[in-house]
Amino acid sequence: MTKMPKAITELAAILGALPGIGPKSANRLAVYMATNGQNNAENLQRILSDVKSQVRICKLCGNLSEEALCDVCADSDRDQKTVMVVETPMDLLQVEQTGEYNGAYLVLGRLISPINGIGPDSVNIASLNERLQGGGIEEIILALTSTVEGEATGLYISNLVRDAAPDIKVSKLARGLPTGVGIEYLDKETLKGALEGRRESN
Amino acid sequence: MTKMPKAITELAAILGALPGIGPKSANRLAVYMATNGQNNAENLQRILSDVKSQVRICKLCGNLSEEALCDVCADSDRDQKTVMVVETPMDLLQVEQTGEYNGAYLVLGRLISPINGIGPDSVNIASLNERLQGGGIEEIILALTSTVEGEATGLYISNLVRDAAPDIKVSKLARGLPTGVGIEYLDKETLKGALEGRRESN
Repeated sequence: MTKMPKAITELAAILGALPGIGPKSANRLAVYMATNGQNNAENLQRILSDVKSQVRICKLCGNLSEEALCDVCADSDRDQKTVMVVETPMDLLQVEQTGEYNGAYLVLGRLISPINGIGPDSVNIASLNERLQGGGIEEIILALTSTVEGEATGLYISNLVRDAAPDIKVSKLARGLPTGVGIEYLDKETLKGALEGRRESN
Repeated sequence: MTKMPKAITELAAILGALPGIGPKSANRLAVYMATNGQNNAENLQRILSDVKSQVRICKLCGNLSEEALCDVCADSDRDQKTVMVVETPMDLLQVEQTGEYNGAYLVLGRLISPINGIGPDSVNIASLNERLQGGGIEEIILALTSTVEGEATGLYISNLVRDAAPDIKVSKLARGLPTGVGIEYLDKETLKGALEGRRESN
């Protein structure tokens, strides 16, 4: 039986390791890039270099940025007294698109997941400690997925805030998010409702 | 409202232009590559170079190959008197995986589609002419999608073979029910094809 060239098989393996791309799609994409999509493949190579050289992590909140501070953190019109904790830059973008939030963010990068060996140290939480000690924060809004990892991470942050600065209110997005669905998949209205209905965390 | 860094937006645009990747998946993949998936992004860059330098098009059939001739064309055990015409190297692989075919192939790369400005000259058909003139071919099997483009391309090749070598048989894959799909889910054309192609039951 004939086989694909090794480079194609390897390309398919790398594409198949990306989230949401199955083995068959990966094969199809690899063949496409090697045939019709050659321009596409060259552009992809070039832009991956650009991403590596031009994109960094905002030193304050963990969002993706071209500068040391991201758009949100650098914006003096934003309310720096409120910090919304999200998992990924995609989640942040999704919240921004509601136009309903004008505070700051903390982008964790990932959630605490002991079962997968991801402890608090692997999550972008340390900077929160610094921000808490810096003062001026009045409310932390937990906008994390309703999963075991999301709840565990939220609980960890609640405890951390209670210990470090008990006057700061910790709230979380209203239940109303469907369990197990990521923030980034929510439609604007659901997200808006969940934001308005947020309550104090215990 | 905050924006993603330009390189991320560009990466998402390139990914979104690939077949089967929508704008939202493209965004998610781009953010993933810029954050958790950095190794993945580097591997992808490297392997895209390999694909460019190591993968070529078989000069005889148009399949993907590491050598001048692909595995199938270089295999002296294959029946070179039968040529199956397919659209893509993925289609070829799919046929190979049945283990039911031992002939040669012609991989068109794309289908004729006048409405999209793709004429016969943009399709890998010229080499078929050479093979027809070389002699020795007894049957051409058209294994093309049942779409307007597939039918048009099949018709073009049928006419071409009839003019160049009227003794060569041109067949096409039977239309019929796909395995495991209920009658109620079939479109009219498939059902019509299955009815027309009915065989005596044993």
